[in-house]
Amino acid sequence: MTRTLIKDSISEIGKKIIIKGWVNSVRSYGKLAFADIRDRSGLIQVVGGKDLGGVKVESVVEISGTIRPRDEKYFNDKIITGKIEMEVEELKVLEASEELPFDIHQPDLNVGLPVLLDNRAVSLRHQKVTDVFKVQATIMKAFRDHLNANDFTEISVPTIVTGSTEGGSEVFPVDYFGHKAFLAQSPQLYKQIMVSIFERVFTLAHAYRAEPSVTTRHLTEYVGLDCEMGFIEDWTDLVKMADSTVKAIFKAVSEKHQDILDEYGVTIPKTCENTPSLKLKEALQIIYERTGRDVRNELDMDPEGEREICRWSMEKHGSELVFITHFYTKKRAWYSYADPKNPQETLTLDLIGRGVEWISGGQRISNYADLQEKIKSRGQNPIDFEIPYGQAFKYGMPPEGGFAIGLERITQNILGLENIRQATLFPRDMERVDKRLPKIEKAKK
Amino acid sequence: MTRTLIKDSISEIGKKIIIKGWVNSVRSYGKLAFADIRDRSGLIQVVGGKDLGGVKVESVVEISGTIRPRDEKYFNDKIITGKIEMEVEELKVLEASEELPFDIHQPDLNVGLPVLLDNRAVSLRHQKVTDVFKVQATIMKAFRDHLNANDFTEISVPTIVTGSTEGGSEVFPVDYFGHKAFLAQSPQLYKQIMVSIFERVFTLAHAYRAEPSVTTRHLTEYVGLDCEMGFIEDWTDLVKMADSTVKAIFKAVSEKHQDILDEYGVTIPKTCENTPSLKLKEALQIIYERTGRDVRNELDMDPEGEREICRWSMEKHGSELVFITHFYTKKRAWYSYADPKNPQETLTLDLIGRGVEWISGGQRISNYADLQEKIKSRGQNPIDFEIPYGQAFKYGMPPEGGFAIGLERITQNILGLENIRQATLFPRDMERVDKRLPKIEKAKK
Repeated sequence: MTRTLIKDSISEIGKKIIIKGWVNSVRSYGKLAFADIRDRSGLIQVVGGKDLGGVKVESVVEISGTIRPRDEKYFNDKIITGKIEMEVEELKVLEASEELPFDIHQPDLNVGLPVLLDNRAVSLRHQKVTDVFKVQATIMKAFRDHLNANDFTEISVPTIVTGSTEGGSEVFPVDYFGHKAFLAQSPQLYKQIMVSIFERVFTLAHAYRAEPSVTTRHLTEYVGLDCEMGFIEDWTDLVKMADSTVKAIFKAVSEKHQDILDEYGVTIPKTCENTPSLKLKEALQIIYERTGRDVRNELDMDPEGEREICRWSMEKHGSELVFITHFYTKKRAWYSYADPKNPQETLTLDLIGRGVEWISGGQRISNYADLQEKIKSRGQNPIDFEIPYGQAFKYGMPPEGGFAIGLERITQNILGLENIRQATLFPRDMERVDKRLPKIEKAKK
Repeated sequence: MTRTLIKDSISEIGKKIIIKGWVNSVRSYGKLAFADIRDRSGLIQVVGGKDLGGVKVESVVEISGTIRPRDEKYFNDKIITGKIEMEVEELKVLEASEELPFDIHQPDLNVGLPVLLDNRAVSLRHQKVTDVFKVQATIMKAFRDHLNANDFTEISVPTIVTGSTEGGSEVFPVDYFGHKAFLAQSPQLYKQIMVSIFERVFTLAHAYRAEPSVTTRHLTEYVGLDCEMGFIEDWTDLVKMADSTVKAIFKAVSEKHQDILDEYGVTIPKTCENTPSLKLKEALQIIYERTGRDVRNELDMDPEGEREICRWSMEKHGSELVFITHFYTKKRAWYSYADPKNPQETLTLDLIGRGVEWISGGQRISNYADLQEKIKSRGQNPIDFEIPYGQAFKYGMPPEGGFAIGLERITQNILGLENIRQATLFPRDMERVDKRLPKIEKAKK
């Protein structure tokens, strides 16, 4: 007899089947014991004797028994098997669990983040924690499906590099056979190169930021949902693609995981047909007009401004999302394309929603000579970027741009999680690589 | 007027359209010039004047013009637009290309691998090189689709770790805020942990091997198509899943890319319904019987043996693939599950085809005490593996196992490429990180 998944047991009333899973809970009443057994498909109540009562929760069991209807007064409409139960005939404990460090069977895990991460293999078993990563899997799939449907080709690019891609010194050094290499800050330069091959490409790439700070929105290792497209008519093509991509992700999550959204008490952000779009300058003006806070000469939008502009977008357009565009050239990455009408501004975009950033992108410099000038103007040598990046431009690059969505950030944003670590299976930060790192007297930089 | 993709131009005869792409070739005849324009969808011949004749190949152009039928004697059945051409009305050079370092428009790229990699952004534009990565994208998608259809959940796991996962010292050290960390040799320990959450998981993970050698089958950074499944009845469930996965990949590649298989002059490996499976010992016996070469006491199969056993499989079973199982315990990774009937052997498997390895996997130790014993027996301290790996077992792990397919290797194997670097967009090895690395007098280890 082979295993029946718990969700399929509801069509087996009166029959003897085998189920396998973890003991989610046990309740003993003398000679009688009840347990909930969990597998990847759901939960079922089983009824047995003393041996069942003695099994520790989270032990892995194989049970053969007969499925029978429950008495109506014991119906449980919270689980799909709520109208049946299994009468245990044979119980095998495949692996016994030890005593858990904390209770993972309550609706909420009332444990602080450090303890939760110190016991990650345990906390991940909690239903509500597990559910975060079901949503995350759906986000990855929706991103790929949407871009495949739009004729993008998936690529895989390296993470060991010889220079900083985004500028700045926040890179992790790698000892590469005695040479100094680094972990890539993003797949940016490689996805741009690949535009000259496939026109439209995407990649899910690990990226690394050695920012020496601990916040609720930063990880040292994260996953970028990155794409890049060539032959854009202009930068608004990027706005449209970013808009349709995030909406495709919303659609997939709400179709597949309404139960999880309910469990977290959240809704998918409200959107309108064309997400509103404001130049940074316009947005700062609106914030000034609405609040009296004079931010008109700021070079960027602060978190308070982001929240205010989201309120504006919701009130004026019924959209919790809003694009901010035309960030200042000196504040954006060196490969950003300056607006020919006003070189102080770049044709870049951020998607803001619920007061935080969801997507960042923009048009890139595609002319070889301009690119070399730009690299020089930042005090760097174009030769260092020539192989293979410069080459892609030297031999003809179409007008192009792209954007990136942080996988953990969009998961955090959709589910309204307080800390990005909750949206990461095994988060890395300055203080932790699985285990907490020992304090260093004076960290080498 | 918006851009028409070249493949769609065949339904625009008599109409004026705009195409955009790269100049694939130019032929000048005085006042008349012909050019082939390439975009992501195909090639088209355009007919123009002197200005067209003067454009350098690989320049990026936008051309408006009228589509007209070709004279029948000029039909070209090698391209989908072979019965039409475009009469150029307006030509815009969006980005001019410089002189190419070598010709990329011949059917074969007759350039040595070092030059090809020194000019990677150029060589990738060659049709036959580009095609490798179309196949690779299909392999990634087929792997995911097959596992999603089998109820696996996609996960994303970290690559910065604090220890060696596979044993051995071939790891790259990372300076992690002054702490010593490493690049993961595989996602192995994390995918195992995740079996205790989702039962069935898969991930496409970058993995790093600091092997100080340069061969045609090794990279220092590669992508593993990794999966892991819990509640196996026994290890043969893994053989079945590996078998169906590789066949799903074959099916997707042959359905989508017959043209590329033809271009490379290769066929998808012949398979039979149940791929034959031999214990290592049985395989060595067969090699001895067939060749007289006495390898019966060897601890592993050598390349010559792999080729011979593939010949056997083809002759006896009509299958170019064959599973070899029951590798010796001392030759396999420490987490491998020993056969209870003979602890000298593990319940592990390799899929061999055309004389090389395609897949490697096996059942893992799932009992917490056994795992601790095993770690100790290898001279290591279980405490170093406890967070989070050991924890997953301490609280109940089902019987489980999994396998991994090297993305670049399976691409190389399917297309019959001589060197794994040809199956990698931007290959990393001991001597190259995009650019060739300078010689080091004495490499630090």
